Amino acid sequence: MTGSNLPFAFEVLKTHGRARAGIFHTPHGSIPTPVFAPVGTQATVKAVPPRELHEIGASLVLSNTYHLHLRPGDELVREMGGLHTFMAWDGPILTDSGGFQVFSLAKISKIDADGVTFRSHIDGSIHRFTPEISMRIQENLGADIIMAFDQCPVPTDRGIVEGAVERTIAWARRCRDAHADDSVQALFGINQGGIFDDLRARSAKALLDLDCPGYAIGGLAVGESKPEMYRTLDFTLPLLPDNKPRYLMGVGAADDLAEAIVRGIDIFDCVLPTRIARHGSALTPDGVVNMRKLQHAHDDRPVDPECDCYGCRTFSRAYLRHLVKANELLGHTLLSVHNIRFLIRHVERMRQAIFDETLDDYVSAFLQRFLQTA
Amino acid sequence: MTGSNLPFAFEVLKTHGRARAGIFHTPHGSIPTPVFAPVGTQATVKAVPPRELHEIGASLVLSNTYHLHLRPGDELVREMGGLHTFMAWDGPILTDSGGFQVFSLAKISKIDADGVTFRSHIDGSIHRFTPEISMRIQENLGADIIMAFDQCPVPTDRGIVEGAVERTIAWARRCRDAHADDSVQALFGINQGGIFDDLRARSAKALLDLDCPGYAIGGLAVGESKPEMYRTLDFTLPLLPDNKPRYLMGVGAADDLAEAIVRGIDIFDCVLPTRIARHGSALTPDGVVNMRKLQHAHDDRPVDPECDCYGCRTFSRAYLRHLVKANELLGHTLLSVHNIRFLIRHVERMRQAIFDETLDDYVSAFLQRFLQTA
Repeated sequence: MTGSNLPFAFEVLKTHGRARAGIFHTPHGSIPTPVFAPVGTQATVKAVPPRELHEIGASLVLSNTYHLHLRPGDELVREMGGLHTFMAWDGPILTDSGGFQVFSLAKISKIDADGVTFRSHIDGSIHRFTPEISMRIQENLGADIIMAFDQCPVPTDRGIVEGAVERTIAWARRCRDAHADDSVQALFGINQGGIFDDLRARSAKALLDLDCPGYAIGGLAVGESKPEMYRTLDFTLPLLPDNKPRYLMGVGAADDLAEAIVRGIDIFDCVLPTRIARHGSALTPDGVVNMRKLQHAHDDRPVDPECDCYGCRTFSRAYLRHLVKANELLGHTLLSVHNIRFLIRHVERMRQAIFDETLDDYVSAFLQRFLQTA
Repeated sequence: MTGSNLPFAFEVLKTHGRARAGIFHTPHGSIPTPVFAPVGTQATVKAVPPRELHEIGASLVLSNTYHLHLRPGDELVREMGGLHTFMAWDGPILTDSGGFQVFSLAKISKIDADGVTFRSHIDGSIHRFTPEISMRIQENLGADIIMAFDQCPVPTDRGIVEGAVERTIAWARRCRDAHADDSVQALFGINQGGIFDDLRARSAKALLDLDCPGYAIGGLAVGESKPEMYRTLDFTLPLLPDNKPRYLMGVGAADDLAEAIVRGIDIFDCVLPTRIARHGSALTPDGVVNMRKLQHAHDDRPVDPECDCYGCRTFSRAYLRHLVKANELLGHTLLSVHNIRFLIRHVERMRQAIFDETLDDYVSAFLQRFLQTA
């Protein structure tokens, strides 16, 4: 079960049910899978220095093509030595295609068969993305893993999803043609199709013809229910090859990570841990905790007594609550680092449980406690 | 020349002109002097974790009585083990008296011989500070060095300064009486008097009677010109005992540190390095650099090629400019750490130059380059 695209070989070391523990080799290091990737939208995981990402076991960081194209510009990043040098993260990087942001953040002025013309959310300037342009930008950025340009629609409107699937297939072929060399950057295809089995199947079949070094599932966790997402994963994952990494885009809720790893997902990314940190929320084994609450004011325990991050080793809930209430930047940093560490350790434990064949026990115990369903 | 108040012994190890290199012992460690103390107003040096303060050689941190009394409350800090435990800074801490903030930040409702009644700048609630209350709050906070409650007036209005000097003397005596034990916390007196020699002398004489373990000069760098400040230091410093540390409050401009160390100051604090960092400015040997400027966009050199801080060892000016332009929190952290390190190293070099008897050469070369007066 080893993928052939050196240096992007993917090894599945152990399966347990449909879950897999593996390792994905890249030019900037090997990624133990399953893996959770924190998001550095603007070439920085918000409020977290790269050396702290190493300290908490991050092995893959995602950055955004759309944002970096607009600011500081992908040509500038290339001139500065590429994204690894620019942001001083020497581990593996994945860039998305810009498709999701073009459709969610920018003001679209024109979408056609060839690409999308849009206005920047920063200054209103007009830009155009096509599959070829997305490839060129991602090549300038220089991430290890790059994504085919896709259209990510509302997952429950069949008419729209149908068009998006066909467009995404056509665009993936053009990305494949524009990106000749998978030995430097591995181009992943993106499966779309919303919650519709036949469209997911249609998308998967077309992508398999491209023999990508990995496959993503897009268009989930964007409005459908959790049961619909899990059912869609149940249907779609068996359609993807066993010997390639499978990446569930934009999913980072701790319960979703568990449900998706059980179903065979290898890679995740999400802004959730850093975004909720900036709102003063902490991930704990007992669920999401709002650190603003008065109940923490006199609490000398760490945010998460079971966590090994710097903040939990060093500071009390009382102090974190003070930082959050006083709007101190250190609160953002400490909670961001903690929340990322929480998800990374959660995934690390599931990886170990796959080797130990105890995944079901771990997941049911985790979910019962995290979702407070005892 | 060793002060007698154990554990707060102050040793002058070397003098060079009026400048002194020494060491000030405290229950939480010994402070090499001269020293620059970064300010952690709300029990956190803004955007900088305490372990990074250790890394850049910080040996003393200042925190604010006024802010901590209002939020989270000094009783709570005491309950959580005191300020050292609360903010996880195990080195020496100095708290100010609250006097400066009461007169600059709060809305005063009543000032009388006994104290000040004021409204919180946070929620408008009514509070009262007296010398005794300031002592009780600072004892709750538990800093190593605490300050007498003072009135810091506009330094050039003689009538107002005169009243403030008398009030500050009376309040210092009451602080002395309220704070019995200098073996746990060293109570410093504050010299006031604006730019008026006779008032500075009157203030100094009265404070000497209290035999404080250290003396601060307050009411400078608050509106008077730099020559007026330097002249006031020239006059006032010889009035203070040689064998006690001398603290110039709220001064942190790199040129002022040099001018004041030459004149015999041992301790400084200022929000300047962290405040200008949040505005995107960096301290460099060539002056203050605005990182927003286009000239840095393609510059692959560090912010300060001569600096040894994490940011300067790791990132380019181009990246820092991007972070600042994109309003990323990491930019605040990296520039704050750099700017504090710049001032600490500047002071470290002057300390070494005192031992080497090369202080004048260092200072004139530094000022010429920093102030661009070549």
